Amino acid sequence: MPETVTEEKNEEGAKAEAPKECRYVVLAGFGGLKMLKVQKKAEPSPGEGEVLIRVKACGLNFVDLMVRQGVLEHPPKTPLTIGFECSGEVEGIGENTEGIAVGDRVIGFTDYGAWGELVVVKAKYVYKMPSNMTYQDGAALPMNFLSAYIMLFDIGNLKKGMSVFVHNVGGGVGHAVSQLCKTVEEVCLYGTASSHKHEAVKDNVNSVIDRAADYCQEVRKLSPEGVDIVLDCMCGEDTNKGISLLKPMGKYVLYGSSNIVTGETKSFFSFAKSWWQVDKVSPIKLFDENKTISGFQLRNLAFQQGQDQYIRTVMNKIFQLYSQGKIHPVIDSVWAFEDVPDAMQKMHDRKNIGKLILDPSQEPKPKVQSAPSVEGAPSQEDGKDNKETVVNGDQQ
Amino acid sequence: MPETVTEEKNEEGAKAEAPKECRYVVLAGFGGLKMLKVQKKAEPSPGEGEVLIRVKACGLNFVDLMVRQGVLEHPPKTPLTIGFECSGEVEGIGENTEGIAVGDRVIGFTDYGAWGELVVVKAKYVYKMPSNMTYQDGAALPMNFLSAYIMLFDIGNLKKGMSVFVHNVGGGVGHAVSQLCKTVEEVCLYGTASSHKHEAVKDNVNSVIDRAADYCQEVRKLSPEGVDIVLDCMCGEDTNKGISLLKPMGKYVLYGSSNIVTGETKSFFSFAKSWWQVDKVSPIKLFDENKTISGFQLRNLAFQQGQDQYIRTVMNKIFQLYSQGKIHPVIDSVWAFEDVPDAMQKMHDRKNIGKLILDPSQEPKPKVQSAPSVEGAPSQEDGKDNKETVVNGDQQ
Repeated sequence: MPETVTEEKNEEGAKAEAPKECRYVVLAGFGGLKMLKVQKKAEPSPGEGEVLIRVKACGLNFVDLMVRQGVLEHPPKTPLTIGFECSGEVEGIGENTEGIAVGDRVIGFTDYGAWGELVVVKAKYVYKMPSNMTYQDGAALPMNFLSAYIMLFDIGNLKKGMSVFVHNVGGGVGHAVSQLCKTVEEVCLYGTASSHKHEAVKDNVNSVIDRAADYCQEVRKLSPEGVDIVLDCMCGEDTNKGISLLKPMGKYVLYGSSNIVTGETKSFFSFAKSWWQVDKVSPIKLFDENKTISGFQLRNLAFQQGQDQYIRTVMNKIFQLYSQGKIHPVIDSVWAFEDVPDAMQKMHDRKNIGKLILDPSQEPKPKVQSAPSVEGAPSQEDGKDNKETVVNGDQQ
Repeated sequence: MPETVTEEKNEEGAKAEAPKECRYVVLAGFGGLKMLKVQKKAEPSPGEGEVLIRVKACGLNFVDLMVRQGVLEHPPKTPLTIGFECSGEVEGIGENTEGIAVGDRVIGFTDYGAWGELVVVKAKYVYKMPSNMTYQDGAALPMNFLSAYIMLFDIGNLKKGMSVFVHNVGGGVGHAVSQLCKTVEEVCLYGTASSHKHEAVKDNVNSVIDRAADYCQEVRKLSPEGVDIVLDCMCGEDTNKGISLLKPMGKYVLYGSSNIVTGETKSFFSFAKSWWQVDKVSPIKLFDENKTISGFQLRNLAFQQGQDQYIRTVMNKIFQLYSQGKIHPVIDSVWAFEDVPDAMQKMHDRKNIGKLILDPSQEPKPKVQSAPSVEGAPSQEDGKDNKETVVNGDQQ
């Protein structure tokens, strides 16, 4: 994978006019952490239907690790600026961007390209933040809260008295799920978490199940008849397990495939096992058992399937809940662009409790080895591959 | 299949005490219409948790035709009294039947055994009818309205502005679906119907599609982006077609397999084609496309999966809608027990518009050939098999 970064050909000129350049987190090619570069590029300007945002905070998601490894089914072309969500202040608007003005505090939801100091976002994916919302909270909403809300309410049809199971309840989606479950009376939430997180998440769930345990067995002990909703971000074998945990009228939602990611770089073995070998499901079996299976992928919904209006409606509901104090993103930690590799490693190791946020204005942590290279210069850690050596088990 | 009817061994004695016998529609064995017999049996009495109902009306459903043919996956043992729903007056109660009293006007939902003058129903499946409800309306509710309600609201999560496609909108479930859709603002309903029914059903749907047409093509003409909910009672090839019609976030619900029934008697060819050869669905495909597939089988839910409390909750919502005048079963016609074969033939030919009701007190229509035999005597039509010679196409 070539590391040539074409955007930098005018680098010399850009340096002469400093205000017209800004920094981005660029994925030079698919692979390990060293593929992440902080690069300067010319400042963009908004075209028709576009909004220019001076970014104050960006959200990191597990799918960013998958992007980096190149394990998405439709991987993007590298090099590119990565990241799917940011918040900031509107610095410019193109034509046909009604309802948005310079100076507005907004969230931007993007099909890549969110991790920069100054980013262009299509107006249909820009949401004006409630006045009491912080930028960090805003950047934490799109991927986790939109997903959690749609899965629980529009797919799962969560009602009073129901039960929900979710993997990794200490992660970003897990936190969003636990908070949204609390907005409905008498909902019982079961979730897995690594043992070191149990103390931190125990108030979010009715029962926390150790990630190393057989969660099917544990859930059945707690609720022998099964649960109403299973939210599965693992895929692979966990799909069958999740479906088996459903009560009659229960709904299983596949929303990710974390099982693909086993180390720092792509593993074809885990990829094949987790993705292509998922058992297909017979509609007749669903008919006999009164069960539902769903797939949910927010980015496809937003960027491939034209559902931006629907997503805006959901975002407004999330804003309402936020303004009412019913939900509040849990921020695990805030990182400089240069420290994205460390942030990704932390997420990979499942050490985060809540959301990882990037702040373009933050200074990188002082360190010798782990900062990614700036402007395409060879990284100091180029020789150290497989930093993420842990596998997809419990990371104590 | 032996036609021995063991319940009749005391026939002579029962005849001497006329008030202690009553009439039932009995399926002597699997097969054609001649397998239906009206037989007298000793009056039952209610055991613990049971209610004795003097039946005023029974509902006929497509699944009764499938029961008769023996094409259900778990067929009952014959001979047996068939039928899944009735209404009437409570004539006796066993112990532990709180809330039900002799004289109450009730609906009974049964796992077979509903088509008799006097039937015993488990109290947990007995529902007190609203005071303004007729017995015929009551008998028309369980199978059609419970199914339609659960599929639209609890599985499909029907909301303002959504679109729904249903097969056979002129049938029992179709009518229930169309009425329930009208309780939600701006719902757009597409449905198929045989051409002779178009005039009768056109006010129930936004667009009626001829049953002989390619409904996928027709729906796509009307709504190029697809629909939000597909309710499929056909199975077989229609499953893939239904899934293909879904919008992103759309939900396909399989609730029957009418395609199995092609003639008066079981066709292994259609059985295999419609049932075992249904394509399995990949959860990954659902993930990519943001789609949901569900199976729904009311009888399993009620009688095998212990969801009687849930079903009671739904029935209460249906009663509310009825009392508010928002729904009202459409009765196609009312039949004597002896005329069940004619009623089944009419349903098979898809000539009914709305619900077929049996009335135990009704005199059979005068005729020479088509009355089923009474008390196991050989039917006059025993030699005339394949009365239902039509295949599963449109029956003009």
